[in-house]
Amino acid sequence: MAERELIEYIRKLAAVDKPPWATVGIGDDAAALEVPGGGQLVVTTDMVIEGVHFQSGTAARLVGRKAVARALSDIAAMAARPLCTLAAVNFGACRDETTWQELSRALCETAREFSAPLIGGDVASGAGPMSVTVTALGIPGTHGIITRAGAQPGDAICVTGQLGGSIRGRHLEFRPRIEEALALAERFGVHALIDISDGLSTDALHVAEASAVGMVLRASEIPISLDAVDLAKETGRPPIWHALNDGEDYELLFCLSEAQAQEVVRTGLKGTVVSIVGDVTSERESYLLASDGRREPLAAEGWEHLT
Amino acid sequence: MAERELIEYIRKLAAVDKPPWATVGIGDDAAALEVPGGGQLVVTTDMVIEGVHFQSGTAARLVGRKAVARALSDIAAMAARPLCTLAAVNFGACRDETTWQELSRALCETAREFSAPLIGGDVASGAGPMSVTVTALGIPGTHGIITRAGAQPGDAICVTGQLGGSIRGRHLEFRPRIEEALALAERFGVHALIDISDGLSTDALHVAEASAVGMVLRASEIPISLDAVDLAKETGRPPIWHALNDGEDYELLFCLSEAQAQEVVRTGLKGTVVSIVGDVTSERESYLLASDGRREPLAAEGWEHLT
Repeated sequence: MAERELIEYIRKLAAVDKPPWATVGIGDDAAALEVPGGGQLVVTTDMVIEGVHFQSGTAARLVGRKAVARALSDIAAMAARPLCTLAAVNFGACRDETTWQELSRALCETAREFSAPLIGGDVASGAGPMSVTVTALGIPGTHGIITRAGAQPGDAICVTGQLGGSIRGRHLEFRPRIEEALALAERFGVHALIDISDGLSTDALHVAEASAVGMVLRASEIPISLDAVDLAKETGRPPIWHALNDGEDYELLFCLSEAQAQEVVRTGLKGTVVSIVGDVTSERESYLLASDGRREPLAAEGWEHLT
Repeated sequence: MAERELIEYIRKLAAVDKPPWATVGIGDDAAALEVPGGGQLVVTTDMVIEGVHFQSGTAARLVGRKAVARALSDIAAMAARPLCTLAAVNFGACRDETTWQELSRALCETAREFSAPLIGGDVASGAGPMSVTVTALGIPGTHGIITRAGAQPGDAICVTGQLGGSIRGRHLEFRPRIEEALALAERFGVHALIDISDGLSTDALHVAEASAVGMVLRASEIPISLDAVDLAKETGRPPIWHALNDGEDYELLFCLSEAQAQEVVRTGLKGTVVSIVGDVTSERESYLLASDGRREPLAAEGWEHLT
């Protein structure tokens, strides 16, 4: 059973109970709800696990940073603004009090850096790997939340930044694209939005499925990071494979009208580079278009959490 | 460094950032906040870890149930009503898909049972123990939230149910005291409220510290469960030691006027038995009063999560 199959299993179980005030339930980057009394909230919970999301021996400061930034990237992916965070830390077999304190400090400081103060949590230790689960609450921007489900045939597909090879360090020290996502909703009428955590290929397919459209990615337009180029020398794979499948880029993947896409590329997005990498089609088929015109079916070869 | 020391360390770090709309921050059973746009929320995040909160081999159904019920007990401890839940499941080394599904189903079903539908989450696997982190959101009852901090000298100290020996099974199958807590706030003007997760001794000291009062518990009045009596035969400790220190009772400990306490005991609390177990004093000393009049300082010998 793959991650997506289990999530689909849970989504179906939970769908029975989905209350009308939960405007987005299981299956998007975050849930959204109307709070009794008036406000709207976006909420997500996200784990980082030693040996899965970070290597043993990674500085506690970076573990705490990643745990918070990862959850806030999910808030950004709904075009929402972070409000606050809670952290549940399982120190596992670690009994080093300096590590406990440094990790705790990193959680508080990263939360502060992105204006999402830490207001609660839980701590425990036991055996095995360390893990940190961060819950983030956010509030929709003035244009409301943006889900994975709004891509329209004819839309351009865009990404921020450069992709691939994040394992060389970027996966620990990225900035969640909060301001960029809010600007996309408020100034560029973005239709669909997701953060690239599982990999461009997998996450593009997530948007395709949620929006009931096809995605055509043009290989020659995909921005490949220098990390991906370096990593390719070690792995023997082409750099574009890494850009498509490595995941943990925490860049934004989004769909909007061709004209708006041109405008974003022209004006830039809060100083962050944007690339148009493909088109949304009405076919229910998604593929990668090589520069010689060959089509390769887009396969979900990105990150798989259940192995 | 003990759990309370680390939490105090984090509380101080986070206090710098505590925004005015976070009406309760780190250090109570749950955080409370005013949502921009209107409405008030209570939010908590809570872990159960294999080998710490449940034994290896425990039925997945019970693990899922406990994970949700534990978080909802924290919502109850604020006199709030559950709204919804999110669950982050780390299956650890477990690769058994039946377990994955049964655990997922238990999370959904327990959430449904207590009217807190599951609206989001995260799944992963890796190595080591399984763990489940549940985040619960709740809304204050009509009389607002009740914290640990309102106990007043002269108040009676009460508990619901019977205490001790929960390890014999109750720690997996308790019902969070949601309706009882709401009734305490709405009908009996309760001053301070906490759920007994760490043990009566430790949790009474939590209330004493938060309320800046002393707690006098009368040994002869503490309701000792049959489980504690049975367990005492195995451990050689007196049953009352287990009632005071075992923890994971998930009963309510609360303080209210003597007259209201008598009234609760007389009328009962949604069918749940209530015992008056002591008095709140203005001294900053807390102790256990034996039937022969001896005083023993109340020691936090309850559950310690960082060992």
